[in-house]
Amino acid sequence: MKAVICGTTGYTGMLLLRILATHPDVKAIIPVSSSKAGGKVLDADPGLSPVILEKLEKTDGCLVTVQEAAALKPDVVFAALPHLASAAILEPFFGRCVVIDLSADFRIPDPAMFAKAYGQAPPRQDLLGKAVYGLAEIYTEDIKKADLIANPGCYPTASLLPLFPLLKCGMIQGDLIINALSGISGAGKKAAENLLFCERTENAGAYSPGRTHRHTIEIQKEADLAFAAAGKPGSGGAEVFFTPHLIPVKRGMSVTTTVNLASGITGTDVRACLEAAYAGRVFVCIEPARIPQTRDVWDTNRCDIGFHTESGPGNKSRLFLFSVIDNLVKGASGQAVQNMNIRFGLPEATGLSLHGAL
Amino acid sequence: MKAVICGTTGYTGMLLLRILATHPDVKAIIPVSSSKAGGKVLDADPGLSPVILEKLEKTDGCLVTVQEAAALKPDVVFAALPHLASAAILEPFFGRCVVIDLSADFRIPDPAMFAKAYGQAPPRQDLLGKAVYGLAEIYTEDIKKADLIANPGCYPTASLLPLFPLLKCGMIQGDLIINALSGISGAGKKAAENLLFCERTENAGAYSPGRTHRHTIEIQKEADLAFAAAGKPGSGGAEVFFTPHLIPVKRGMSVTTTVNLASGITGTDVRACLEAAYAGRVFVCIEPARIPQTRDVWDTNRCDIGFHTESGPGNKSRLFLFSVIDNLVKGASGQAVQNMNIRFGLPEATGLSLHGAL
Amino acid sequence: MKAVICGTTGYTGMLLLRILATHPDVKAIIPVSSSKAGGKVLDADPGLSPVILEKLEKTDGCLVTVQEAAALKPDVVFAALPHLASAAILEPFFGRCVVIDLSADFRIPDPAMFAKAYGQAPPRQDLLGKAVYGLAEIYTEDIKKADLIANPGCYPTASLLPLFPLLKCGMIQGDLIINALSGISGAGKKAAENLLFCERTENAGAYSPGRTHRHTIEIQKEADLAFAAAGKPGSGGAEVFFTPHLIPVKRGMSVTTTVNLASGITGTDVRACLEAAYAGRVFVCIEPARIPQTRDVWDTNRCDIGFHTESGPGNKSRLFLFSVIDNLVKGASGQAVQNMNIRFGLPEATGLSLHGAL
Amino acid sequence: MKAVICGTTGYTGMLLLRILATHPDVKAIIPVSSSKAGGKVLDADPGLSPVILEKLEKTDGCLVTVQEAAALKPDVVFAALPHLASAAILEPFFGRCVVIDLSADFRIPDPAMFAKAYGQAPPRQDLLGKAVYGLAEIYTEDIKKADLIANPGCYPTASLLPLFPLLKCGMIQGDLIINALSGISGAGKKAAENLLFCERTENAGAYSPGRTHRHTIEIQKEADLAFAAAGKPGSGGAEVFFTPHLIPVKRGMSVTTTVNLASGITGTDVRACLEAAYAGRVFVCIEPARIPQTRDVWDTNRCDIGFHTESGPGNKSRLFLFSVIDNLVKGASGQAVQNMNIRFGLPEATGLSLHGAL
Repeated sequence: MKAVICGTTGYTGMLLLRILATHPDVKAIIPVSSSKAGGKVLDADPGLSPVILEKLEKTDGCLVTVQEAAALKPDVVFAALPHLASAAILEPFFGRCVVIDLSADFRIPDPAMFAKAYGQAPPRQDLLGKAVYGLAEIYTEDIKKADLIANPGCYPTASLLPLFPLLKCGMIQGDLIINALSGISGAGKKAAENLLFCERTENAGAYSPGRTHRHTIEIQKEADLAFAAAGKPGSGGAEVFFTPHLIPVKRGMSVTTTVNLASGITGTDVRACLEAAYAGRVFVCIEPARIPQTRDVWDTNRCDIGFHTESGPGNKSRLFLFSVIDNLVKGASGQAVQNMNIRFGLPEATGLSLHGAL
Repeated sequence: MKAVICGTTGYTGMLLLRILATHPDVKAIIPVSSSKAGGKVLDADPGLSPVILEKLEKTDGCLVTVQEAAALKPDVVFAALPHLASAAILEPFFGRCVVIDLSADFRIPDPAMFAKAYGQAPPRQDLLGKAVYGLAEIYTEDIKKADLIANPGCYPTASLLPLFPLLKCGMIQGDLIINALSGISGAGKKAAENLLFCERTENAGAYSPGRTHRHTIEIQKEADLAFAAAGKPGSGGAEVFFTPHLIPVKRGMSVTTTVNLASGITGTDVRACLEAAYAGRVFVCIEPARIPQTRDVWDTNRCDIGFHTESGPGNKSRLFLFSVIDNLVKGASGQAVQNMNIRFGLPEATGLSLHGAL
Repeated sequence: MKAVICGTTGYTGMLLLRILATHPDVKAIIPVSSSKAGGKVLDADPGLSPVILEKLEKTDGCLVTVQEAAALKPDVVFAALPHLASAAILEPFFGRCVVIDLSADFRIPDPAMFAKAYGQAPPRQDLLGKAVYGLAEIYTEDIKKADLIANPGCYPTASLLPLFPLLKCGMIQGDLIINALSGISGAGKKAAENLLFCERTENAGAYSPGRTHRHTIEIQKEADLAFAAAGKPGSGGAEVFFTPHLIPVKRGMSVTTTVNLASGITGTDVRACLEAAYAGRVFVCIEPARIPQTRDVWDTNRCDIGFHTESGPGNKSRLFLFSVIDNLVKGASGQAVQNMNIRFGLPEATGLSLHGAL
Repeated sequence: MKAVICGTTGYTGMLLLRILATHPDVKAIIPVSSSKAGGKVLDADPGLSPVILEKLEKTDGCLVTVQEAAALKPDVVFAALPHLASAAILEPFFGRCVVIDLSADFRIPDPAMFAKAYGQAPPRQDLLGKAVYGLAEIYTEDIKKADLIANPGCYPTASLLPLFPLLKCGMIQGDLIINALSGISGAGKKAAENLLFCERTENAGAYSPGRTHRHTIEIQKEADLAFAAAGKPGSGGAEVFFTPHLIPVKRGMSVTTTVNLASGITGTDVRACLEAAYAGRVFVCIEPARIPQTRDVWDTNRCDIGFHTESGPGNKSRLFLFSVIDNLVKGASGQAVQNMNIRFGLPEATGLSLHGAL
């Protein structure tokens, strides 16, 4: 396979390059950068070993333009580009190869809902119907046939993997209170004052709560679909209260979801539902006893899930769900490659890391 | 004033020493350590300047025993000691000087509730009725007359300062979903594998959720009192769902509380209630527009409070409350000194820091 | 006293504001910012408590221009501005009040040497002869009479405090090999990609070695003066090899200097020389046995000094000197206020912090 | 191949497990732990994915004892054990399989020199003559035939890779001034107060300078050998002045070596010498223009080398050498696997990582 990476010099692009560099079924990589085209890849990314050059398409070790990349007839293109810019840059590839877009441009099929989240109409409304939402463990069968995959956001990935099966089984009632902690790489590699080391170390706090964060709408959309699949359409009973927090780690995401269980549902039921949903899926681990921590899955494509139940007053039973991912891997570049694997009929873990950091 | 610090070599003891060292009304400090008595203070704490010696009671610059300290007839004693050990060590001081206990031993007046949280009966049940809960801005009048002050836990302090007035005014209904992030100094200075730099850097996650954390009961107790003061006794409508998280900062605590507003209550009402509750109180700042971050209050005795409201489906209105403190200052040693100031008729900010870190 | 801060919104300016806010002899502060004049101080710096407003000159809580500040007839002005820009901005103050310049514009009296380091002629060559180099413990007597004080660089401060007395006493021979580690705040608060949290955490290394760093020349100049004072003019025997390193801390500087001792000099001599040089100076502590660490002096104006000697082959004796400072305090804003104290006849420690962080 | 890891639960053992888990030529891993034998590997190391179980020798997913491991007839054993304890624990393996010892027990062939560094006689003096010092790029030919490989220390690896060829070519004269920065994982996973997160974050400084650090002797030994190979036996002209520093990173080592060049030697000569020495060696990269940073090689087995030259007074030319490694990989577990690869005739990079962290 021949793969293009658009946006090679950002964090998700750099990580895509590393994953594809050792992927056994990717024979050539074409690195694209609009701002640095013509420059050497090794200059743009000093962490790379010169051995990377053996795997780059014969471009003299340089970053190329989108047009040059398109001319090389790739099998798959990954777009690690800003929201609202991605669709336009991908233009030369639609219909010519598989497109995996890590931006939000194709994640929300309803144009009105998209506009509410992103402040303008979706850039290629005509393609929305063809895009498959690439939450790999949930939409596996659709991904196998997709030519346009909308890779999910990091918060939605970590929030939905534990929630989706439980909502679909009707085990949860009432609001979904989601509190998430994110590593700073989630904000990308832009030179902004509030992302400086001295501004972020020994500092933490919430930002963009509720509907002021665009991922709230992405999560709500999928929660509604799961709720509908449970035969309970409408979102009255599963409204998302989402609060993201920024914490001083480079990579890592921890999500705590607090909900009420439906009448009669116990921790045993929760475990059984989650284990059934992810049987045979190597990247989702249901922790038997431990609350997972972000380091467990650092630099892996895993999502580890734990939970805690306790009885409340008036026969209410509460559920605390804990999920952790690496925001750059399962929350971005890793899941993108997992989707490529699924789409091209490869084992889904091919080329992806499983063991977390020390 | 002459002040004793019991537990001088832990983080809260070390910080008490620093605050009292520059406190204009404290003329002498007597540093106690059971494990290091006889050793030099400057050896135990290399961050101290030798000028500290001028303010230490004439003990040759050494740490002393509890008995030696008691013989020096202090005006006030601070206990920065482990839960369940503190009351016994304080024995020589009860009735002889003002006691400010930073442990949980006197925080929960109901023995059954204490036993539920701490696994045994309260160590000095006879004194529980005399202890005042030292949430400084809430119980100011009681603190003025108290000879035994139970300094609150860090999570309860940060959670309750925004919640208490709103509950008391009847502005909140339904469960109190509290998610908190804590710096690692909250776990103290014990040599435990899970507190090593290499185990905590680039790592975050929840721990001890719900009633498995003892502060849940401390928060619930005060929430019930506020609810009762609102004329709505019983906790049916304000049940605490608490989840603490550990994040890789040394100092800092951020609390996000997600609740539903009572019918008809708006953001304007919330602001008015909070501003009225803390008018004239220099350590509680209601942020007009910004979500406070832990760095804003690093090394200060402040609690900064922000909030966000939005309408939900079915006429529900949601409230997100954000509060930040330095867990070692307002969450421990700083509030202890604030309580001393209040008890001894000094301006409450005497000797305490107001401006946060860079 | 009435004090102006030029460059209030950078890290050294922000720290000057905090120090002066609690300085008992400073009655009014006038905060200047060229880029943010007219904006509220509290908006520019969310760490400040509103109590700061009581100490700001009546400017409605706003940042003002240089011209507005000059019209308010200050007693002292601090310039926390970039090199080569500072002298011009200070124009309205020269000859009208005491000027303490934290930039390099007046640090190097020899124009040719300045040009070698900064790539152009010194901006106000005519004033070079009047400027006193503000290494506070070394040039105390000159500072008392100075109207223009060139506050030293952070690396020179930490390097020279241990070296200067030893060179002056003729105790060192041969090259001065200086390796320094600096916190990232030393690079200022500019939004540059290489200063992002994700670029600096879990990352360290040397930069600008030898004469490619401008502080090499500043250190060499003072080493030559000390050598000359020892009756050994010329620099042949004390050539500076300087290598700075950037490490992932916000604040802190550690300097290790490796030299050969002059024939017959022992560790006892070294200690005696350093103790004599700094007798009665509260901010320089000679550690008897311990190698000082940056945290010991975090947020203080101290410089802690330790050393190690061992015999080498051929009767050579080696000396390892260790010095630590907080780069923003003793390395910048704190030493600036110390210089103000000395200049205005106040105790040198007035308003400055002595006890290090936990 | 079947591989044993002794000391599986320390940082180097955990990393060996991860590397061997994906090594294509290692078919079975036998994890040994003296303290946790009988416990599940997945409980001891929550970062592991359950897929690791497929590669563990059939021990029910448990850690085993040394005796159990020896009975399984491994081809190679790695010892990630404390100095002075390692040789004894390895007893059952000597003469029965290839032994790669990551401790210092076999690194110093001269018993007197060993005793000077480690305070006692080498534990298996009889085997010293058979052990090969596993500095992989320098002693490749010896390693191919060795049955006992003494894996070098992290500081010696990073210091010697740039120095050895230059010394051997006679390009350096005078003392070797080596200043090194190390990540905290170098101190291992022991629960010690000075390794706590709160003690190490925002903290840095030197420790164990000169001959008080045992690696000084290990470096000096190799420097003497290189000097002797240059036809200049004796160490008079290449005496090691070594100062290690601890900095707040988990993994990473940066070494700055400051020396004088031999008469007439230029930067061009230095480059040519280093490039010739490491031609064809994938893990040593000579940086053309950039000073390498630790992040470039994070989680890789690379050593990146940069340098800077400048002329000094009196026709002296100075050389600043910069080398970076990941202390746990090239400084420990990675080089151990590289040595295994060389010993068993595999390509030296098999199973080892080349591209650094983002």
